[in-house]
Amino acid sequence: MTQTPPADGPADIRDGEIAVALPGRFDAQLYFIGRIRTPWTRRQDCPHNAREARERGDVCTIEVDPRFAAALKDVAGYSHLIVLYWMNEARRDLVQQTPRHASAPRGTFSLRSPVRPNPVALSVVRLLNIDGSRLSVIGLDCLDNTPLIDIKPYFASTDSVPEATTPAHKQTSDTGT
Amino acid sequence: MTQTPPADGPADIRDGEIAVALPGRFDAQLYFIGRIRTPWTRRQDCPHNAREARERGDVCTIEVDPRFAAALKDVAGYSHLIVLYWMNEARRDLVQQTPRHASAPRGTFSLRSPVRPNPVALSVVRLLNIDGSRLSVIGLDCLDNTPLIDIKPYFASTDSVPEATTPAHKQTSDTGT
Repeated sequence: MTQTPPADGPADIRDGEIAVALPGRFDAQLYFIGRIRTPWTRRQDCPHNAREARERGDVCTIEVDPRFAAALKDVAGYSHLIVLYWMNEARRDLVQQTPRHASAPRGTFSLRSPVRPNPVALSVVRLLNIDGSRLSVIGLDCLDNTPLIDIKPYFASTDSVPEATTPAHKQTSDTGT
Repeated sequence: MTQTPPADGPADIRDGEIAVALPGRFDAQLYFIGRIRTPWTRRQDCPHNAREARERGDVCTIEVDPRFAAALKDVAGYSHLIVLYWMNEARRDLVQQTPRHASAPRGTFSLRSPVRPNPVALSVVRLLNIDGSRLSVIGLDCLDNTPLIDIKPYFASTDSVPEATTPAHKQTSDTGT
């Protein structure tokens, strides 16, 4: 592999954020298998998260490369899908970062931020319709033209954990507030 | 990029399965950021799926590369995580394939099979403990030493869809069987 990782400088790091030296080589490679078409061309117009995307209800379109269209057979039977996509504008070297809503730096693996060693994002979407190699879905919050990595069926039996808790839940139950 | 995609031959295709010519180049690259340690060194010993993995309850260990260990800050507060990993022994060119349990070929995007254009697998796991850069979890079904791609927090508010239906559900409700 001749392509070297991006050399992100420390210039645009906020107080308390931590960058690491990335490995000198990559280990595996991906194909972009399609594009995600959304109404949003600027980051500030996107829904802030998947919950807001679902509540706003904007319909987005997943355009699968015709090369892989035959892989959509049987997908129409599922009510929900898992979509993996590539956040290709994100830096990859921050292990602790301060999101807009946070008061202190947080570990990258405790966030769904696109800034992570491998910027593969994941959304659970509701499938409305399939027309050839185009899927209409609700639940995406990414920029228009985002590269598609994978589509998987969603299984409530293993992917749905309604009782899952977050630190906010735990804090609430611990402190009674 | 000088590494060319693997040239899988059609020799080991089952009746009705469909292979496509893969693109001549890759579009993005991944780091392996750790390893997943499981009790299973042979495919036939692994749980058949995530549900069986959860029911068997075997504890697996995610070993994060020390380079990225600081990214685990705050992760301990979550009860469940999403783990992305690389199924590096899978072929990538089948768009329709016949799983063991199926009677006819199915579209790759309707399956969670490791055989797909980008063999990134996803499991929802229950977090038991974090010791340094090692996480003890329940819910993985992969081979020992599987490369780790990402760890994300699981949010019930957006990742849990208990009412999601599959073709089996639909068939049941359609036919009454």
